[in-house]
Amino acid sequence: MKKLSITALGSAALCALSFGAAHADEGMWTFDNFPSKTVKEKYGVTIDQPWLNRVMSAAARLSSGCSSSVVTKDGLVLTNHHCVRACAQDLSTDKADYIKDGFMAAKREDEKLCPGMVAEILTTITDETDRVNAATAGKTGEEFVKARDGVIATIEKEGCAGKEAQYRCQVVTLYHGGQYKLYTYRKYSDVRLVFAPEMQTAFFGGDPDNFNFPRYDLDFSFVRLYEDGKPASTPEHLQWNANAPTDGEPVFIAGNPGSTERLLTADQLKALRDYRIPDTLILLSELRGRLIRFGEESVEHARISDDLLFGVENSFKAYRGEEKALVDPTLIAAKEKADSELYGKVMADPKLSAEIGDPWKDIADVQPVQKALYETYMYEEARAGIGSDLFGYARALVRAAEEKAKPNSDRLPEFTESRLPLVEKRLLDPSPVYPDLEQLALEFWLSKLRENLTADAPGTKTFLGKDSPETLSKKLVASKLADPKVRKALWDGGMAAIQASDDPMIKFVLATDPASRAVRKEYEAKVTGPTDRATEKIAKARFAVYGTSTYPDATFTLRLSYGKVEGWTDNGVTVKPFTYFGGLWERATGQFPFELAPRWQAAKGKVNDKTVFDFTTDNDIVGGNSGSPAIDAQGNVIGAAFDGNIESLGGSFGFDDTVNRSVIVSTAAITEALKKVYKDDGLVKELTGK
Amino acid sequence: MKKLSITALGSAALCALSFGAAHADEGMWTFDNFPSKTVKEKYGVTIDQPWLNRVMSAAARLSSGCSSSVVTKDGLVLTNHHCVRACAQDLSTDKADYIKDGFMAAKREDEKLCPGMVAEILTTITDETDRVNAATAGKTGEEFVKARDGVIATIEKEGCAGKEAQYRCQVVTLYHGGQYKLYTYRKYSDVRLVFAPEMQTAFFGGDPDNFNFPRYDLDFSFVRLYEDGKPASTPEHLQWNANAPTDGEPVFIAGNPGSTERLLTADQLKALRDYRIPDTLILLSELRGRLIRFGEESVEHARISDDLLFGVENSFKAYRGEEKALVDPTLIAAKEKADSELYGKVMADPKLSAEIGDPWKDIADVQPVQKALYETYMYEEARAGIGSDLFGYARALVRAAEEKAKPNSDRLPEFTESRLPLVEKRLLDPSPVYPDLEQLALEFWLSKLRENLTADAPGTKTFLGKDSPETLSKKLVASKLADPKVRKALWDGGMAAIQASDDPMIKFVLATDPASRAVRKEYEAKVTGPTDRATEKIAKARFAVYGTSTYPDATFTLRLSYGKVEGWTDNGVTVKPFTYFGGLWERATGQFPFELAPRWQAAKGKVNDKTVFDFTTDNDIVGGNSGSPAIDAQGNVIGAAFDGNIESLGGSFGFDDTVNRSVIVSTAAITEALKKVYKDDGLVKELTGK
Repeated sequence: MKKLSITALGSAALCALSFGAAHADEGMWTFDNFPSKTVKEKYGVTIDQPWLNRVMSAAARLSSGCSSSVVTKDGLVLTNHHCVRACAQDLSTDKADYIKDGFMAAKREDEKLCPGMVAEILTTITDETDRVNAATAGKTGEEFVKARDGVIATIEKEGCAGKEAQYRCQVVTLYHGGQYKLYTYRKYSDVRLVFAPEMQTAFFGGDPDNFNFPRYDLDFSFVRLYEDGKPASTPEHLQWNANAPTDGEPVFIAGNPGSTERLLTADQLKALRDYRIPDTLILLSELRGRLIRFGEESVEHARISDDLLFGVENSFKAYRGEEKALVDPTLIAAKEKADSELYGKVMADPKLSAEIGDPWKDIADVQPVQKALYETYMYEEARAGIGSDLFGYARALVRAAEEKAKPNSDRLPEFTESRLPLVEKRLLDPSPVYPDLEQLALEFWLSKLRENLTADAPGTKTFLGKDSPETLSKKLVASKLADPKVRKALWDGGMAAIQASDDPMIKFVLATDPASRAVRKEYEAKVTGPTDRATEKIAKARFAVYGTSTYPDATFTLRLSYGKVEGWTDNGVTVKPFTYFGGLWERATGQFPFELAPRWQAAKGKVNDKTVFDFTTDNDIVGGNSGSPAIDAQGNVIGAAFDGNIESLGGSFGFDDTVNRSVIVSTAAITEALKKVYKDDGLVKELTGK
Repeated sequence: MKKLSITALGSAALCALSFGAAHADEGMWTFDNFPSKTVKEKYGVTIDQPWLNRVMSAAARLSSGCSSSVVTKDGLVLTNHHCVRACAQDLSTDKADYIKDGFMAAKREDEKLCPGMVAEILTTITDETDRVNAATAGKTGEEFVKARDGVIATIEKEGCAGKEAQYRCQVVTLYHGGQYKLYTYRKYSDVRLVFAPEMQTAFFGGDPDNFNFPRYDLDFSFVRLYEDGKPASTPEHLQWNANAPTDGEPVFIAGNPGSTERLLTADQLKALRDYRIPDTLILLSELRGRLIRFGEESVEHARISDDLLFGVENSFKAYRGEEKALVDPTLIAAKEKADSELYGKVMADPKLSAEIGDPWKDIADVQPVQKALYETYMYEEARAGIGSDLFGYARALVRAAEEKAKPNSDRLPEFTESRLPLVEKRLLDPSPVYPDLEQLALEFWLSKLRENLTADAPGTKTFLGKDSPETLSKKLVASKLADPKVRKALWDGGMAAIQASDDPMIKFVLATDPASRAVRKEYEAKVTGPTDRATEKIAKARFAVYGTSTYPDATFTLRLSYGKVEGWTDNGVTVKPFTYFGGLWERATGQFPFELAPRWQAAKGKVNDKTVFDFTTDNDIVGGNSGSPAIDAQGNVIGAAFDGNIESLGGSFGFDDTVNRSVIVSTAAITEALKKVYKDDGLVKELTGK
């Protein structure tokens, strides 16, 4: 749960939205369909193939749900602090708190492996739409899902055959099934933490300032890619530009926006508005309350729960923004108008209408089924375990053992050959498990399962038996799966070892997984399958009517957005696009979350107060873009995107460039801080050559 | 926050609702407008004036937000356990936990005063509509509110002149201002706890079973009215009938339904749907999370937070039901149709339309203003202090001192002569204050104030200054207001003593109250005033078009509903209207909240398993009806209403008698339990004469 890994940017002036083609600086463009012509006309900047290739080669997707960029020839990678927050917590102990105090490797040997982290750099894109369509022709519901997932698994396996150790192949569904593309990634499974500032420096202002501006956050960190135990050689990196941009300067952001809903129908948006997002907000709020109190119980409880609480609060705020956008009646009205326009055009064209049918009705028909299955599906399958590592390990072990025995194309998608290496790495990398926090997470999940399904539901009896959530959680926390050796033995031993295990969490998952799988199967057959099939058809209709001069909804794959440094006007108040170091001293109150880390208290008067700290641009980015390089016209890195403004939060559903802003920490600020505050000459030299 | 003191019953099949006149067994009728003719026709039961007078004389409203009935000549009062839960907690210590273990006074001298509790029995109703209308004629906005509240204060003062010690006068606004009636109550300020079962017996099944049926809750308690230190003489009590009713038998429920929204316009319902209820659910969820974790920290934390958590969970579930009803598009559509029908009839009548104007437009115009002021009004005024007793004491002391100096008709309504005695009693009765829980409540309020108003809002600076919510709360919890003597000195000393006080909470309220009062004044001028004025006009239109053969929205004043013992059908499953003691043993798992209190574990085989435990009827009741007597055709008490079924939860907005059910604990069960489990022969004799 990362700051920019959940939601999407959007629009306050929603009535001005159009759902047809892209406008203004809107758009999260794929690298094989970037509107260079528009950019040339609007900004006079030439984005040619070499420029695109260079940026693509330096942009790395992180398995922590973030983006990043390679910035030196020795594999040094710039990302956000909040993208390595979980890593810093995993590496910490009750003696060394790298979140609170920061982490600075004095030399390369001190750089530490981030458990479970993989970095992936996109190398090629090929079109597989025809092959997928051929495999799914004439199929619906569960059959359609099975055929589609099967052919995808096969394409991925064939695409990386013989080079699996260094590459990963992923078929990406664009335009909700309008296109299927094979993305091939160079992967790095040894990613080490190099530098992270103090949390209080990276996240100054905390939750109150989150998604706000002006902002004074040094939300950056460095990790390094390793190969064969040595820093990777990365000649095609971005060049570090330590000069801040000027107001109005063109800016490009390359990264992996996670998810947007701009192509959904009005019916789908109503499901989000009426129960999906409200349910999520209620769930996150109670978990937030439990975690806040947990963290107040002791310094150690605060330390071990910090990253989870941060993720919960960040998600909460993002969903809250989405909810506020959805209840504005103009949004749904505009979407209904767009739906009906496209529908009208399809119906007016006999050939198209014969091909497309009425997918809007198909989606409408799915809605009551989805609503009826939703809670069971969420609590028994999609949200099962809510934050419990032990449950996550057990489920991965049980399911992997079961799935590995099947042919690749018959497996659950998350256990196909192309995905197994990441599953394995996450399972086997050592990473701390905190029993008190496990108890909290499991109790919470099981009590919400009982509450939402009701005490007498069959699912409640399957998961709880006659136990209370508190008692059962206590039994499960006795699991030995926190020990990576235990996990390794079960992974290697397969189903036989798992069946023979007397670990309480393994036994619990073995007993409950048939119920989870059953509701998943039903949900896919009755909800996901028909929905995906219908949205594919709507995508085809959209291509037929509007052409392909638009961008697909975000899919946590590499995109490029263009824009410029720009502030905005909020209820008549002009917000300028820059903050400076000097403003930090003015905002500090001495009390959390507005207090300074000791190094910064000491730095007053020693750093240049006129250095640009954070800045805003009108690039169209969303959750998942965290850590994305902000790039100047020459292709050099000038910052790392880490947030959006509050106005941007509703915009999973559309983009309004009068108010939607990206928030970026400048390379100028990072450089000045490394020199004057952290005195890390080694890093400064590696970045700037000086 | 009581089980039936927050929300209202309603309808799952909302599309079948009509918003014109009452249907089926719908209706919360005032005692001066009961539809005896309809009841005679439908049930063959004669409800004449003597019947009504007798029931009215025995029905007591409790200041804990509940209803009750006098059931013996010595002032013994039947209500719910959850209506005295706060009292039981106030009387408990870390040595004696009356919530967990129950409270049973062995003799009258052991009966204990419930802090802050007052019981009120309605004696007369007189119409004051003309007098109020004369005072407010031609006034709007703030002027209207001032004139209305002023004349109400005057009527109340005059109505009880010379008999204030024993009576309370209250002007009740019915039909949203269509009628103003003076209700005169005989009041009892010395109410003592007589008997409360164990929480686990009264609330078996806990939150999971709350608002569900079948149900096995002995949710009853007894308090006693005292006068001059002796049990009050109450010859006009209800007769105890220890026989359970039969299926289909007519049942009457007399009590104080708290609040319904059946007469609101569609615009007002949308405000509830789009932000008022969602905001409340989010707030309650986080507080719930904090309290759950707090209670897990120690036995003592569990004990002191139990009642607050219960109230939060109960409110949460009730609002959740309302939210689910509101997002069903048929509800708002039906309301829009009803609005537009009435509007059409008004416009078609030139005389009526000249008199009424367009109040629907007035209400529509208020909506954006309300939305803009809402958060500030809630966090600085309406919800200020969220659960903190210390803040509540300080605000009452500061405001009372200020208001008492003004003429009665110029005061804030809660400090007029007719209300001051209850304010004083609540302030001065000794009642425990728990510093740990105060810290939790204050931190929560202040952090939500900052979050919802934003860190840079003027209000946030007024309330927090440069402090964090945590630090400021710590300073405020050092207040000495937990000591009733300190409160008494400040109450008696008035504004001079308050200004001179160095108590941190008093100083905090003195510093922040101008901001709270300012936003309240603005909200009343721009939101409440125009809304009340417009709803008054709509009420007049409704009377003119539909006549007065309907009932007013609930106002926590005495009402009578009629109905019958009846089950219902839930998704094809028939739910029978009775549970029996025998079912309790089957449902018990031995784990919270499905475990039995020790006395009941021992009672298995000793009580008659065929005794009716709880039963359901189709009476139209809502929150505030908790503790209401269920009465048979002869006017005898046969149970105490304590809940509604889950289908009833959306029905603040309308009643559907195919599925809305009241849930009642039977006198049969209470009698059997007193005899066989609690062996309280004294109470049995007092109730039954045997």
